[in-house]
Amino acid sequence: MPREISVEPIVAAFAGAPVRNGLRNRLYLAVRQAILSGRLPAGAELPSSRSLARELGVARNTVLRAYELLLAEGYLEGRGGSGTFVSERIRAPQGTMTEGAGGNGQVAVSARGKTLLAHAASSRLQGGAFMPGIPDVSHFPFAVWRRILGRYLRPEQRHLAQYGYGGYGPLKTVLAQYLGMTRMMSCTPQQVVIVNGTHQAVDLIARVLADVGDRAWMEDPGYWGARNVLQAAGLEVVAQPVDGEGLAIRPEERERPPRLIFVSPSCQYPTGAVMSLGRRLDLLEYAERHGSWVIEDDYDNEMRFHSQPIASLFGLSRSQRVIYVGTFSKVLFPGLRLAYLVVPPSLAEAFTVANAELYREGRLPEQAALAEFIDDGHFSAHIRRMRPLYRERLETLRELLSGELGTAVSFLGGHAGLHLTVQFAEPLDDVAIAASALNEGVICRPLSRYSLEASTRRSGMVLGFAPVPVERMRRPVEILLRAIGAHRRPSGQGAGG
Amino acid sequence: MPREISVEPIVAAFAGAPVRNGLRNRLYLAVRQAILSGRLPAGAELPSSRSLARELGVARNTVLRAYELLLAEGYLEGRGGSGTFVSERIRAPQGTMTEGAGGNGQVAVSARGKTLLAHAASSRLQGGAFMPGIPDVSHFPFAVWRRILGRYLRPEQRHLAQYGYGGYGPLKTVLAQYLGMTRMMSCTPQQVVIVNGTHQAVDLIARVLADVGDRAWMEDPGYWGARNVLQAAGLEVVAQPVDGEGLAIRPEERERPPRLIFVSPSCQYPTGAVMSLGRRLDLLEYAERHGSWVIEDDYDNEMRFHSQPIASLFGLSRSQRVIYVGTFSKVLFPGLRLAYLVVPPSLAEAFTVANAELYREGRLPEQAALAEFIDDGHFSAHIRRMRPLYRERLETLRELLSGELGTAVSFLGGHAGLHLTVQFAEPLDDVAIAASALNEGVICRPLSRYSLEASTRRSGMVLGFAPVPVERMRRPVEILLRAIGAHRRPSGQGAGG
Repeated sequence: MPREISVEPIVAAFAGAPVRNGLRNRLYLAVRQAILSGRLPAGAELPSSRSLARELGVARNTVLRAYELLLAEGYLEGRGGSGTFVSERIRAPQGTMTEGAGGNGQVAVSARGKTLLAHAASSRLQGGAFMPGIPDVSHFPFAVWRRILGRYLRPEQRHLAQYGYGGYGPLKTVLAQYLGMTRMMSCTPQQVVIVNGTHQAVDLIARVLADVGDRAWMEDPGYWGARNVLQAAGLEVVAQPVDGEGLAIRPEERERPPRLIFVSPSCQYPTGAVMSLGRRLDLLEYAERHGSWVIEDDYDNEMRFHSQPIASLFGLSRSQRVIYVGTFSKVLFPGLRLAYLVVPPSLAEAFTVANAELYREGRLPEQAALAEFIDDGHFSAHIRRMRPLYRERLETLRELLSGELGTAVSFLGGHAGLHLTVQFAEPLDDVAIAASALNEGVICRPLSRYSLEASTRRSGMVLGFAPVPVERMRRPVEILLRAIGAHRRPSGQGAGG
Repeated sequence: MPREISVEPIVAAFAGAPVRNGLRNRLYLAVRQAILSGRLPAGAELPSSRSLARELGVARNTVLRAYELLLAEGYLEGRGGSGTFVSERIRAPQGTMTEGAGGNGQVAVSARGKTLLAHAASSRLQGGAFMPGIPDVSHFPFAVWRRILGRYLRPEQRHLAQYGYGGYGPLKTVLAQYLGMTRMMSCTPQQVVIVNGTHQAVDLIARVLADVGDRAWMEDPGYWGARNVLQAAGLEVVAQPVDGEGLAIRPEERERPPRLIFVSPSCQYPTGAVMSLGRRLDLLEYAERHGSWVIEDDYDNEMRFHSQPIASLFGLSRSQRVIYVGTFSKVLFPGLRLAYLVVPPSLAEAFTVANAELYREGRLPEQAALAEFIDDGHFSAHIRRMRPLYRERLETLRELLSGELGTAVSFLGGHAGLHLTVQFAEPLDDVAIAASALNEGVICRPLSRYSLEASTRRSGMVLGFAPVPVERMRRPVEILLRAIGAHRRPSGQGAGG
């Protein structure tokens, strides 16, 4: 074997190596690259650390440390104390590992990955007029939250810093009590499962109770997020229309019972319909007869403006076919990422185990802080503080819009929640209207986008009034009105297709 | 219609209704139950609020409020101002909704739910000797963390309280720099995806890059958690054995390329093998040729006791077939639930969108706190503080065991990570040994349980030394030795099947 001492390839590679991360790393990468590209062939002897250091103008120690790493990883080998050599066992791959061959350019996302991406609707923008589904966090008592949370981030509470299993007991107890008081839900703490959001709740339900290919009924129009999560979990999502009484199951679909039925009965999202008692009883009877599970999404029940919270579907189901999903995102702050399920007693163990297995629980300090926050009355106080503010914003928005648009619009819901749904009398292109408004910095969600099927599609907008103080509402409303105006046909011409 | 005023059914139901949640709720539930069971038939007139209050011994207001709720929900209806009646539209379901019919007793978990539950291995117990995979959190600088986190839970930082999208920029930047320095990984912040744990990372990868029924190779023995998550995501998990050089793909399996290959090359879990350079190059070449994706689980690279961190597989892959997964659970505290992926540039957008869509991001205050914690040097300081402590515990445990057991055991790994893997020279029943130890309060994981296939199964134990200070190690070791002793055959007798 020729005893050539190869300096030149290393010097060249070093010149081209990334400078960002320190000299030792840079030299390591250079030598490695030279080896893998074959320019430093297997068995070649490397220069001594002293001579290479001199050649590159770096400290000898830098070279020694780089060599050590390459030796440890098998790129280099020593031979009885005399010299350092490129390992004999390196096969320089043909063409694969050459410098700059950055990837084969093929993006091989899976079929279900493609579907997920195609339907993805989470917004990059997360605030301002009129983003629906987000609260006004400027009034959140951060100082109180910080103080309480801080009590659980201490050495004496270090047991809370480990993985969790089955959630934090006192939080589940507080929640069970709270739900008993406000939703007539009779449940034990064991039936409460803490998760990090509604999406995870729906995903967990789909994994535990449904198999790939099972059918799931979704309200249509309905919450896009739940639809996407159910689809991503491999379920076949079937749209069911919604009317003034809530979910209105198509007669022909009743012959094809689903595994899961997703409803928001207290305040249908986005139409605001409250599921009537007759429909509730019918749904529960149907679910029991066919072994379907009902997912009750109770996302905004704290923010009711004109009445008491409506008793839950969960509490009405004697045969316990309902999984209740609640969240703190709208009442506290969305970034907290805390939500919960209430499951029938027979499923409590299964959901607890599955939750821990799929997601590895934790965040006990936050759960403990939330339990104390609720127990000490801060939760109720915050809701009481926000409710009149939100009601005022809702009413202001409604007045400003109806003042200008009159009978060109009607309003759906508006009795609860952080959004106002506007339906256009004419079938305007609400997607184009939303795009125009977005150009001027105002977010609104086209109502048509909430529908899977054309037959349930309505033209309108879902507007989040919560983040907009009344004194700052005029301007974004003007932008909205301009966008609508730009897409309305002059009166006298037909609405057209 | 008979004008009977029905007091008796209400009084009876009230007596039996849950007392926990206030009188108004109790009465509401009682009347509702009486209606749904048919004891208060459709059209029946209810007693006046005054007379019912007198009958039950409650305030008239309580009755009025209960009636209001029942009216609002459709159980009762008024008739022109004179009297309150059970709604005509209530069909009392036959036998379905009767009191006490608590569920049909059938637990209908799905097939994949059953599989998940059957293989679930997350432990209810989360601490103490010798729970593997958890750090000693008693030395974590909670005061520093609390202070830094508190800076981001303030009104002036309220934009951090909203939903996230694409993670917190400065954290991704800090991570990209850190990985460049310590793992020779050249990546941009855009390639970093923040998730809430390794399980979620693997789940995300499986959903974006693989379809149901696709094949995934797992090291065997290997990390049960990743195996279960991959199976739960619908993949067919195929075990590949591990030897002293890491993953050793069976020759016949090479004909059946998988979509995903899960490896822990820096420190194979649980055997501790470091994947040799030759195997690394072979794996990357194979992955590129067949379009497989390699998941690199780098769970414990900070805790190396005898050498520099080993350069990542990710950094070695010119064709970018590696998804790198790292976590803070072992270095900070597991309950924090923060981890990350580093994906090839071509997949950065897809993973960002999918992550937001499936899980709805948030926790920006924690991410901001972590970025500052790392930037200000607390992260490195904590690692430097813990490393000698952990090394001492590792060595103490090894000495205590080898001192008693001698050649009856050999040790695998021990050069990195928070666990020591002990292999028994004889094929002892390690599951029984673990059960005996657990009876006396000591946790150890049977090594055999880490293997899917009998052919790779080894008898031994995986011991987490991290939570055990050296001065408290003797007692749990004694318990362990007792448990082992109880299951060893006297010398001279064959090891048997």
